[in-house]
Amino acid sequence: MLIPVMVHSETNAVTKHAKEICSFGKKALIVTGKRSSYQNGSIDDVCAALQGGKCDYIIFDDVEENPSVDTVMKATKAGQKEKVDFVIGIGGGSPLDAAKAVAFLLAQPTIHSRLLYTEGNHDHLPLILIPTTCGTGSEVTPVSVLTIPEKQTKKSISHKIFADLALIDGKYLRTASIAVLRNTALDALTHLIESYLNKKADDFSRMFVDSGLKLWRENKDCLENGELSDRQYQKLMNASAMAGMAIAQTSTTIPHGLSYSLTIKKHVPHGKAVGYFTAGYLAQAPDKERSYLLKSMGFHDTDSFERWYLRLYGKTEVSEKILDQAIEELWKNQPKVQSASFKIDKETLKQIAYYTANYKE
Amino acid sequence: MLIPVMVHSETNAVTKHAKEICSFGKKALIVTGKRSSYQNGSIDDVCAALQGGKCDYIIFDDVEENPSVDTVMKATKAGQKEKVDFVIGIGGGSPLDAAKAVAFLLAQPTIHSRLLYTEGNHDHLPLILIPTTCGTGSEVTPVSVLTIPEKQTKKSISHKIFADLALIDGKYLRTASIAVLRNTALDALTHLIESYLNKKADDFSRMFVDSGLKLWRENKDCLENGELSDRQYQKLMNASAMAGMAIAQTSTTIPHGLSYSLTIKKHVPHGKAVGYFTAGYLAQAPDKERSYLLKSMGFHDTDSFERWYLRLYGKTEVSEKILDQAIEELWKNQPKVQSASFKIDKETLKQIAYYTANYKE
Repeated sequence: MLIPVMVHSETNAVTKHAKEICSFGKKALIVTGKRSSYQNGSIDDVCAALQGGKCDYIIFDDVEENPSVDTVMKATKAGQKEKVDFVIGIGGGSPLDAAKAVAFLLAQPTIHSRLLYTEGNHDHLPLILIPTTCGTGSEVTPVSVLTIPEKQTKKSISHKIFADLALIDGKYLRTASIAVLRNTALDALTHLIESYLNKKADDFSRMFVDSGLKLWRENKDCLENGELSDRQYQKLMNASAMAGMAIAQTSTTIPHGLSYSLTIKKHVPHGKAVGYFTAGYLAQAPDKERSYLLKSMGFHDTDSFERWYLRLYGKTEVSEKILDQAIEELWKNQPKVQSASFKIDKETLKQIAYYTANYKE
Repeated sequence: MLIPVMVHSETNAVTKHAKEICSFGKKALIVTGKRSSYQNGSIDDVCAALQGGKCDYIIFDDVEENPSVDTVMKATKAGQKEKVDFVIGIGGGSPLDAAKAVAFLLAQPTIHSRLLYTEGNHDHLPLILIPTTCGTGSEVTPVSVLTIPEKQTKKSISHKIFADLALIDGKYLRTASIAVLRNTALDALTHLIESYLNKKADDFSRMFVDSGLKLWRENKDCLENGELSDRQYQKLMNASAMAGMAIAQTSTTIPHGLSYSLTIKKHVPHGKAVGYFTAGYLAQAPDKERSYLLKSMGFHDTDSFERWYLRLYGKTEVSEKILDQAIEELWKNQPKVQSASFKIDKETLKQIAYYTANYKE
């Protein structure tokens, strides 16, 4: 295992660590989305911290959901023009993943988008990541998933980019809608499950999973009734970070692998799309592991998990064509298929993919 | 939190990661003790890995228990003379702590022992640490504790030195005596307890504690009856590393602070010396935390923990003079005293220090 990220998780983390933020250089490129970082106050906190330290900055706030390589190139060119010293990503997984790719490109001798998907060094400008959702754990993983529109697919860049500093503050969740909280918390939950049911799982990756599930379970009811306290927001954030640490060790497996088609072709939010395949994955897992996971999440059996999923997230109508495409696409990626901790043949994969479509309450 | 150490924990870790070891340079300085690394096979594994990668090396195998600044200087001079590129520490906490100090000094423009205890940079030569006991967790902590003989004390150097690579292989415990296993495993246990009962504890440090205690509890009976399997050796090693990760976040507190006098003045092994004050520390802790910890370790109450301690480690006769000195010395270090998660006044400290001395079965 390796978590080379300095993580500060606390209320007002940005303000408390303003000096540390400004220690990375004289000019920062802030990479974020159009709206939420203005609503939740995170960008104000960051700008105030930078101003307080007399640190210059520019803002690129044009990152879309499931960011494209084109967006990353635009942000990179803005940073290159202004000769920034370091990059600050603020937001959900999309801005954080984009910020990693930008920090990587800005450290390369010549900047070209093809470097993102070419083997080579993992050098990057100093990088600070500030999550404002509780799902990806991107602030502690080395992964940056970008959309390649011409190929209609999402793909991790070839480089492992760990942030230098992650500042985790649950207060940025206060303004998030319950739909966003549910979607992102479900993403975190699937990271925990997929990391546990992974061939690479060991005592250390399971340490992250055990503690992440414990925090997640303590928030399950609040996710349902929508009444959350600041301590619970922080727990959601920490569970997400632990889930990120878990997949940073093992990577994700089947449900994530199947989900991409739903997100790209039907625009199903990432968490909900992965959740669509999670009960199916659990149903195929060995009894002992399944029981442990369900118990840790606070469910009696796979059925009660699936009912909870449908109650909170609604049923998504997915055509057989899309499901079959999802299966075929994942089947081509055999390392991903074989990363599951139990045997996955084509029939098992089909059972997992069709579980929710065929589910009768 | 921050664990910037690449940790590989598995059987034959050194052999499996030989290429990674050799990637750090052309010439290595191996820092180890006189005996155990030859007996447990660790030094043979390391030399074979280096030879296989055509990497040159020299061996400094003169590290004593509770290593002194003088020993560190001798090893440093050997490395300087031979212009080594990186340092490999092999052994229990003593060689690993010494290796950290050596790697630090070798990266300084001019080498002088006073730099160890002077504020300044934390630069160090690339450092690989290979534990062969299951107590200090030094392979994942930034701490290097050295003995300063003229002051009759042990003190952490002023620099935070994290290893670049830690290779954790339980098989090196096969040749350890049951006394060494018990002493070091008790040290790890006290790290977990002291990290939990620490003001700096948070969701992340407690993640390490929870998982470390779980592994430790699964080994408790084996430590008593002395029958251990390879999987159990690995668990002991991993519990020790998790305990190291926990104190790397919070640092240790009262029992460690009291223990140094026993070790320096009565030569009580480190684990046993810290354990001498652990039941006393638990007895003073708030009910909720004490119950949680005792239950996680597999004990009903403080009494059953203390009886277990005395059964396995024997009673140490300690004079009032030494105990009073231990109290006075720790009391001078108020940041350490106040790092406990509950209020410690002089009377509380006395209760903790005298708990075992006054204990009647």
